[in-house]
Amino acid sequence: MPDISTVREYMSRHSNWGKWGADDELGTLNHVTPEIRQRAASLVRKGKPFSLAVPFDENGPQRGTFNRFNPIHLMTRDGADAIAGTSVRDFYGNKDRYFRGTDDLVILPLQASTQWDSLAHVVFEDKIYNGYSADQVSSKGAFRNDITHAAVEPAGRGILLDIPRLKGVDWLEPGTPITGDDLDAALEREGITVQKGDFVLVRTGAISQVRSRGSWGDYAGGDAAGLGLGAIDWVARHEVAAIATDTWGMEVLPNETPDVFQPLHLVFIVQMGLLVGEIWDLDALADDCADDGVYEFFFVGPALPFTNAVASPLNPIAIK
Amino acid sequence: MPDISTVREYMSRHSNWGKWGADDELGTLNHVTPEIRQRAASLVRKGKPFSLAVPFDENGPQRGTFNRFNPIHLMTRDGADAIAGTSVRDFYGNKDRYFRGTDDLVILPLQASTQWDSLAHVVFEDKIYNGYSADQVSSKGAFRNDITHAAVEPAGRGILLDIPRLKGVDWLEPGTPITGDDLDAALEREGITVQKGDFVLVRTGAISQVRSRGSWGDYAGGDAAGLGLGAIDWVARHEVAAIATDTWGMEVLPNETPDVFQPLHLVFIVQMGLLVGEIWDLDALADDCADDGVYEFFFVGPALPFTNAVASPLNPIAIK
Amino acid sequence: MPDISTVREYMSRHSNWGKWGADDELGTLNHVTPEIRQRAASLVRKGKPFSLAVPFDENGPQRGTFNRFNPIHLMTRDGADAIAGTSVRDFYGNKDRYFRGTDDLVILPLQASTQWDSLAHVVFEDKIYNGYSADQVSSKGAFRNDITHAAVEPAGRGILLDIPRLKGVDWLEPGTPITGDDLDAALEREGITVQKGDFVLVRTGAISQVRSRGSWGDYAGGDAAGLGLGAIDWVARHEVAAIATDTWGMEVLPNETPDVFQPLHLVFIVQMGLLVGEIWDLDALADDCADDGVYEFFFVGPALPFTNAVASPLNPIAIK
Amino acid sequence: MPDISTVREYMSRHSNWGKWGADDELGTLNHVTPEIRQRAASLVRKGKPFSLAVPFDENGPQRGTFNRFNPIHLMTRDGADAIAGTSVRDFYGNKDRYFRGTDDLVILPLQASTQWDSLAHVVFEDKIYNGYSADQVSSKGAFRNDITHAAVEPAGRGILLDIPRLKGVDWLEPGTPITGDDLDAALEREGITVQKGDFVLVRTGAISQVRSRGSWGDYAGGDAAGLGLGAIDWVARHEVAAIATDTWGMEVLPNETPDVFQPLHLVFIVQMGLLVGEIWDLDALADDCADDGVYEFFFVGPALPFTNAVASPLNPIAIK
Repeated sequence: MPDISTVREYMSRHSNWGKWGADDELGTLNHVTPEIRQRAASLVRKGKPFSLAVPFDENGPQRGTFNRFNPIHLMTRDGADAIAGTSVRDFYGNKDRYFRGTDDLVILPLQASTQWDSLAHVVFEDKIYNGYSADQVSSKGAFRNDITHAAVEPAGRGILLDIPRLKGVDWLEPGTPITGDDLDAALEREGITVQKGDFVLVRTGAISQVRSRGSWGDYAGGDAAGLGLGAIDWVARHEVAAIATDTWGMEVLPNETPDVFQPLHLVFIVQMGLLVGEIWDLDALADDCADDGVYEFFFVGPALPFTNAVASPLNPIAIK
Repeated sequence: MPDISTVREYMSRHSNWGKWGADDELGTLNHVTPEIRQRAASLVRKGKPFSLAVPFDENGPQRGTFNRFNPIHLMTRDGADAIAGTSVRDFYGNKDRYFRGTDDLVILPLQASTQWDSLAHVVFEDKIYNGYSADQVSSKGAFRNDITHAAVEPAGRGILLDIPRLKGVDWLEPGTPITGDDLDAALEREGITVQKGDFVLVRTGAISQVRSRGSWGDYAGGDAAGLGLGAIDWVARHEVAAIATDTWGMEVLPNETPDVFQPLHLVFIVQMGLLVGEIWDLDALADDCADDGVYEFFFVGPALPFTNAVASPLNPIAIK
Repeated sequence: MPDISTVREYMSRHSNWGKWGADDELGTLNHVTPEIRQRAASLVRKGKPFSLAVPFDENGPQRGTFNRFNPIHLMTRDGADAIAGTSVRDFYGNKDRYFRGTDDLVILPLQASTQWDSLAHVVFEDKIYNGYSADQVSSKGAFRNDITHAAVEPAGRGILLDIPRLKGVDWLEPGTPITGDDLDAALEREGITVQKGDFVLVRTGAISQVRSRGSWGDYAGGDAAGLGLGAIDWVARHEVAAIATDTWGMEVLPNETPDVFQPLHLVFIVQMGLLVGEIWDLDALADDCADDGVYEFFFVGPALPFTNAVASPLNPIAIK
Repeated sequence: MPDISTVREYMSRHSNWGKWGADDELGTLNHVTPEIRQRAASLVRKGKPFSLAVPFDENGPQRGTFNRFNPIHLMTRDGADAIAGTSVRDFYGNKDRYFRGTDDLVILPLQASTQWDSLAHVVFEDKIYNGYSADQVSSKGAFRNDITHAAVEPAGRGILLDIPRLKGVDWLEPGTPITGDDLDAALEREGITVQKGDFVLVRTGAISQVRSRGSWGDYAGGDAAGLGLGAIDWVARHEVAAIATDTWGMEVLPNETPDVFQPLHLVFIVQMGLLVGEIWDLDALADDCADDGVYEFFFVGPALPFTNAVASPLNPIAIK
């Protein structure tokens, strides 16, 4: 049975520490070049954009009141006040005889919804990606590897690997590991190749399952289909820029390593410096890909540049 | 001197209420078609992305403690805890013998940083865009015209109109109105045309001024260069998808109408249903455009789909 | 079956609108006089204080992510950082060679935990207490009847009416209404009288039930024992300063009026201007009263003066 | 000139580590006994309560957007919505045909307003009060010495030492240190003694100065009058329960020790386990004391029991 020693082996085999310099904080985003982006733009054939974000609101997917809760949206000035004339939370003073504005704010756990993990999100034996000490992530946030390093580069070729359609099911059952062979079979079925610098979107169908049952249930933090140990070498070998999935944690859960929680996070984020996306809604894109048979597209998914943050919400866009 | 009657004239001349149906909530995003997007992708010539967002952090641009404050970023689990072993805010239970994560959240006024205004942001005489009652924007948020309607469509052709470079200055002085003639002169100088469905980025140099003085100063809410009444017809006539600027409020301030605060907001947002972007950092893009003489590009700038929200932070991307 | 007309009858019978002037915002706190407070202090016989607050934390009693969630406590500087030396969120600059501080903040729904309702908390037919228009409670908060009016006065004689001990049970079953006769029987059993200006604490045992089952369950918002319609005249006749209970909503639930939710709130808060306390933990105090047979005490329970707020958390203290 | 070695001397002279057991988290609150409380209640002679809290709102005293900002108060349901009928943020479902409620929340740095510091607030050489390791204060909060230990005990005898009236000035100039001799002179002038277990309120007049100039200015974090090194022995010798002042930081600033920031915090909080109160408004109480010549009173000032918090807002009450 695989265990921490298995994980350590993967970690040592696929370490990118130092590969792009002792000061690198970009990780696998280094694989994306201008040429790649330029070629990728030609994948815009229909001019049709797809948002890959779930709704950012109180209805899900989080279910605890703790740590990762759903976004709390609050109005500071609203329209009913504008009508009543009692909207005094107005920095415009007396000038706004005709102008009435509304305003709002949000309290948002950065990993509650559709998101990128930064390379400061995971710690292994007191270190984060590229060997920086974990104490560089203090109460003040990450001084190294913060999410601002994913605010410009994430634009390029995207591919969708639709595993449920490969397997002829609506969704993979929670606990199903996805292997490198699965990913290759999906490529073959879809008639595409994976290329260096790709943004690889792997669909498990988890959000279809949520839609089907009409509730998020234990989606957040619960058992899930996802990449297994058998996918690690595939991801590393192809030098992809990022992996994103429609599950909360990218990996198969329960993990294949009883003594190690989320082992792929250790290999991917800590050691490879791979950008990982979670809670992405790939369903509408997948339906379109199934319709026209085209599984590659132009992808634009920058993080919001939250200084010192260890993750960022985003609205990733695939354009076909 | 222009006043509310002038503004009412513009409002009645350029109203789009009902133009796209009684239920429309998209406004000028209706101008963007798949064909437009498909053609726009060919503007990706160098494969170089530019983030148009300012940093999302405590250092600016907001300066009040009121209503619109700077993002407050807070860690819920950090790396020093991981080292100390006291990071018990861990929903992973005892399984994480090896895995240690960090997590964070943000308290974010949706208009504090780089943002889109929704069509529910401005109220005029108890109405919002398309004639919906302002009471549709309650404490719970906007039931009509919320920002989720800008979460998919904002992708297409972008153009930068660099007014300071047109005028031969580093930045326009606060209070300088930009007219339709200025916009035409910029087009001519830059060798481009404006097209239906364009995302038009108008640079005033305000953020260059901030950089030059080393502080945000009164950038947020203070006097500013920006579009004046003389630009309204230009914007309406060209059927652009959106206007975004590098100032906090898009319009010239002090306003040209002493009795009406932000008159263009009334015409653009309430009447035309125009998507308006504010606090965008156009400097790096402008430098590149000046270098290579190319002022058009592929633009991708979706809002984050905050349900019922009247604005959204975003990281707009121009790709040349 | 009682219905809205019953409630209207109670409302008109017990209205205090105008009783203490057209500008009054104190309501029944007007009943408390210096003489009452002076006499009440003599009830401090053992010098033993009891906190009547539940813990303010993530573990309860709220159970939704919506509106009323549990307090979210976040550190801005912590001790592990102090050790690591990475605690740069330090406004002390370089001076703190030896001093290291920790700091925190809380996101707190004002009615999530032990609290007073303000007289602006309930609206009936567009009015709040004393006849002020409900539009005086805007997005900016309450301009009339805000909770700051309960920040000084709440000190005086407190009495505990322990209904479960009266009935010989550990707690009243949810749905049990408490009547004026019950309150009189409790007074008689406890050997005390109720006096004008009293802070009357009515125990239902709801928190004992929570303790017994080891979880909050549906305590917040669920069915509950509490004051019924039959207690209204008693409360009004005795001119008490306030009523507080160990349930989330003070009243019996399901309500006795199928067409009116929380009818006593309408009579008490809107019409009488009664201060109402909810989610108070009366168990330790009740045990002590049962031990020594003394059910009266000095009570101090000021609201925190949150400007424009419609409720306030507090830590009410009974001193015997 | 005093320096860290002076501070170390005070620390070693007045350490209470272990004095009340290896597990103590109460510190000097151990000095308050039931007898003390019982006697203190007799100081309620007029039945007049004084709130010692500043307003909890956006207007002060904090002035940064960082770390300690002013409370942000937000409505989740308001009265204008109740009138408009659009208040759907209602967990009551369709039952509330007649009942309409308002609700709010606050984002509150625990040390932004009137507050107690917990014994976990200050770290010296990796330790907090009673010798616990500072890593017991993690991102999750304080596992030792949290503020819940001040939620029951703070009730007893209070005395006001009005230093500006002693000196015949409206307020002490910022930078003025208060010594043990000053405190003794105040006692003599006021005709009282200090007793073991007292809650000692020391007025510097700082809030009078704020009132006089009409703005908080640099009150928060700026130069201030306050206790100096010369007051340490007095505080320790008299075994008081707590010290609270009308300044943001209790101590004189600039500190008398150029190399040590807030040296009394190190002695008082880390070593003695003294409860320290800051940002208390003592003016109304002081006026009354000057009027009737009575400077002692019953004091009730419990912290709110925020689990794991390192400070707590409160509304302290003095009753004469």
